[in-house]
Amino acid sequence: MTPANHFELLGRDGEARTGRLTTPHGMVRTPAFMPVGTAGAMKGVHWREVRETGTDIVLGNTYHLMLRPGAERIAALGGLQAFTGWNGPMLTDSGGFQVMSLAQLRKVGEHAVTFRSHIDGLSVELSPERAIEVQRLLGSDIAMQLDECVRLPAERGDIERAMQLSLRWAERSKRAFETAAPGYMLFGIAQGGDVAELRHASVRGLVDIGFDGYAIGGLAVGEPQSVMLAMIEEVAPILPEDRPRYLMGVGTPEDLLEAVARGIDMFDCVMPTRNGRHGVAFTRFGPVNLRNARHADDPRPLDEASAWPSTSGYARAYLHHLVKSGETLGAMLLSEINIAYYQQLMRDIRDAVLTRTFTSFRERVHAQWAQGDIAPR
Amino acid sequence: MTPANHFELLGRDGEARTGRLTTPHGMVRTPAFMPVGTAGAMKGVHWREVRETGTDIVLGNTYHLMLRPGAERIAALGGLQAFTGWNGPMLTDSGGFQVMSLAQLRKVGEHAVTFRSHIDGLSVELSPERAIEVQRLLGSDIAMQLDECVRLPAERGDIERAMQLSLRWAERSKRAFETAAPGYMLFGIAQGGDVAELRHASVRGLVDIGFDGYAIGGLAVGEPQSVMLAMIEEVAPILPEDRPRYLMGVGTPEDLLEAVARGIDMFDCVMPTRNGRHGVAFTRFGPVNLRNARHADDPRPLDEASAWPSTSGYARAYLHHLVKSGETLGAMLLSEINIAYYQQLMRDIRDAVLTRTFTSFRERVHAQWAQGDIAPR
Repeated sequence: MTPANHFELLGRDGEARTGRLTTPHGMVRTPAFMPVGTAGAMKGVHWREVRETGTDIVLGNTYHLMLRPGAERIAALGGLQAFTGWNGPMLTDSGGFQVMSLAQLRKVGEHAVTFRSHIDGLSVELSPERAIEVQRLLGSDIAMQLDECVRLPAERGDIERAMQLSLRWAERSKRAFETAAPGYMLFGIAQGGDVAELRHASVRGLVDIGFDGYAIGGLAVGEPQSVMLAMIEEVAPILPEDRPRYLMGVGTPEDLLEAVARGIDMFDCVMPTRNGRHGVAFTRFGPVNLRNARHADDPRPLDEASAWPSTSGYARAYLHHLVKSGETLGAMLLSEINIAYYQQLMRDIRDAVLTRTFTSFRERVHAQWAQGDIAPR
Repeated sequence: MTPANHFELLGRDGEARTGRLTTPHGMVRTPAFMPVGTAGAMKGVHWREVRETGTDIVLGNTYHLMLRPGAERIAALGGLQAFTGWNGPMLTDSGGFQVMSLAQLRKVGEHAVTFRSHIDGLSVELSPERAIEVQRLLGSDIAMQLDECVRLPAERGDIERAMQLSLRWAERSKRAFETAAPGYMLFGIAQGGDVAELRHASVRGLVDIGFDGYAIGGLAVGEPQSVMLAMIEEVAPILPEDRPRYLMGVGTPEDLLEAVARGIDMFDCVMPTRNGRHGVAFTRFGPVNLRNARHADDPRPLDEASAWPSTSGYARAYLHHLVKSGETLGAMLLSEINIAYYQQLMRDIRDAVLTRTFTSFRERVHAQWAQGDIAPR
């Protein structure tokens, strides 16, 4: 059965799309970038600042939350929104990706994946049904099916096995989600690594099952950007046009721009906060490493034309000092500055698609990045 | 020569006083609590939040700032206010205390203290004149004389020697400050450890020199609270009534209340932010350790009656989770919550003194602290 549609396309320009997705906790403008609030918190950024950057929706990690503080506990406290104070839409991943990257002694079986918690070493079983149960307890607006993600490069045989298992888990996830309240959504995840044929088979299988939206998983896991973009070009055209398309775990500002140009609507990535913690700011001029001594005496802001107060208001010399001194405030400011840059980019992308000026916008943005940072003085 | 007075007493109740101090960067209501922005940043708290808590003035550490990014650099960037974005009054210490506690291979001589920087190991000399020069370069509204602070317990001979040296340095500091712009202030620091006679001699010497305000140094360095309060009782009555009195490096909320009751006007302490980073919140009910498992399922806020949004808005369960998970947001929230509690206490103290209800206010606050935290449920 095809679920009711909560996504509305408002404009297109070439393959690029803009629209809006209605969730139980509010509206999401697409293309949308979801900052990652791993364990119920955005690292170094207050929720009100996340909202002020223009963020409509955030991502929570099921793996972290189920281990600590626990899904049943969060449910008893009123769900993830009431618990954290982020009163907007939330998407949660299934936990599968972190099981692969963080957990110890993991074992993937037909029924479920079992692993030892990286927090207390206890053995945990995550089945497609439990992944859905956990996400429903959390109160996620958008739940993701459990899948198996293979790191690239990988053997075709391994990629195919994981893709087929993910398809069977997709079917079970769909069944487990049938009793969810109206308005809540479940997305399927296309796997298939860097093999076009397997990607096609995965999408066909998912569309047969029928989801509220479709994610492309298993990319940005070690392959070159060209491979990622080639896979999007294989997958996007055969995805249902009226459903949101979500490229998981991506990426740099350039990745986002290029993926939108190929028909993607949603993204999540830890880059803005992680790079912020490491002293790197994303700007109109490309990435700027504040650790560099060239900023030590520079009274100019990162970007005087930015509408985000911290981007236009703080001297590079001050940000450099904070980063060099290991002051928390440095990570805090650069994390919000980066999320704000990502959201400004998404806003500009949406406007460009709506006004059918995306092609020239894309060229202009690339040219500015290529030009690089302002000259030292 | 006695400098022009920038302090105005607005009310008294017993020994407790309330007033206002006019600085080049704005007005300071007293009794005042100064949060500590060590190296040009408040750990885990944005400057706008510091302001929103009701903070009028913050403290910067000369020792840290002179080593990194350097006083001359900050001066070239327009001073500490322009550099950091904190556009309010700032007091800087002289650097002497951190030389004693952080620097390696320090050597105190008549002319100056020499030490190796804890950052790069370079040898640095800090004389009374250089301490003033650095603070003037930083643009501090209130500069402190260089002094030598002795950790207690100590021999009387050591205490006396350090006190006499501090007095000679006070004289040199005053001379070095003579050419400062009008409105900028220099405070002398009374030493003398836990010996009443030496404290008296120190104050007499300082008053003879004549300062804009008087600090009591060398307390809260290992002695019991009773000794600290006894020393304040020795010193406060012989300090000029029309000048602000600053108790350095103090303290707990109770220390502040009791010191105000003995005539103190200004305080600074790292406790609100340091304890916040360690999971402890200061509240109307006394200190609350959020690490405690009793909070894990508690949907109630720290204090539902608090006017500070994070104190009344976040569930204890969420704060507990953030602290247990080591999330930066936990330290950020508890640091702002603690500064807000301190500033609410100072506001209430000022109101109580002005309305001459300080005695009953003080009893009520003590009773509430003694009652302890709300019962678990």
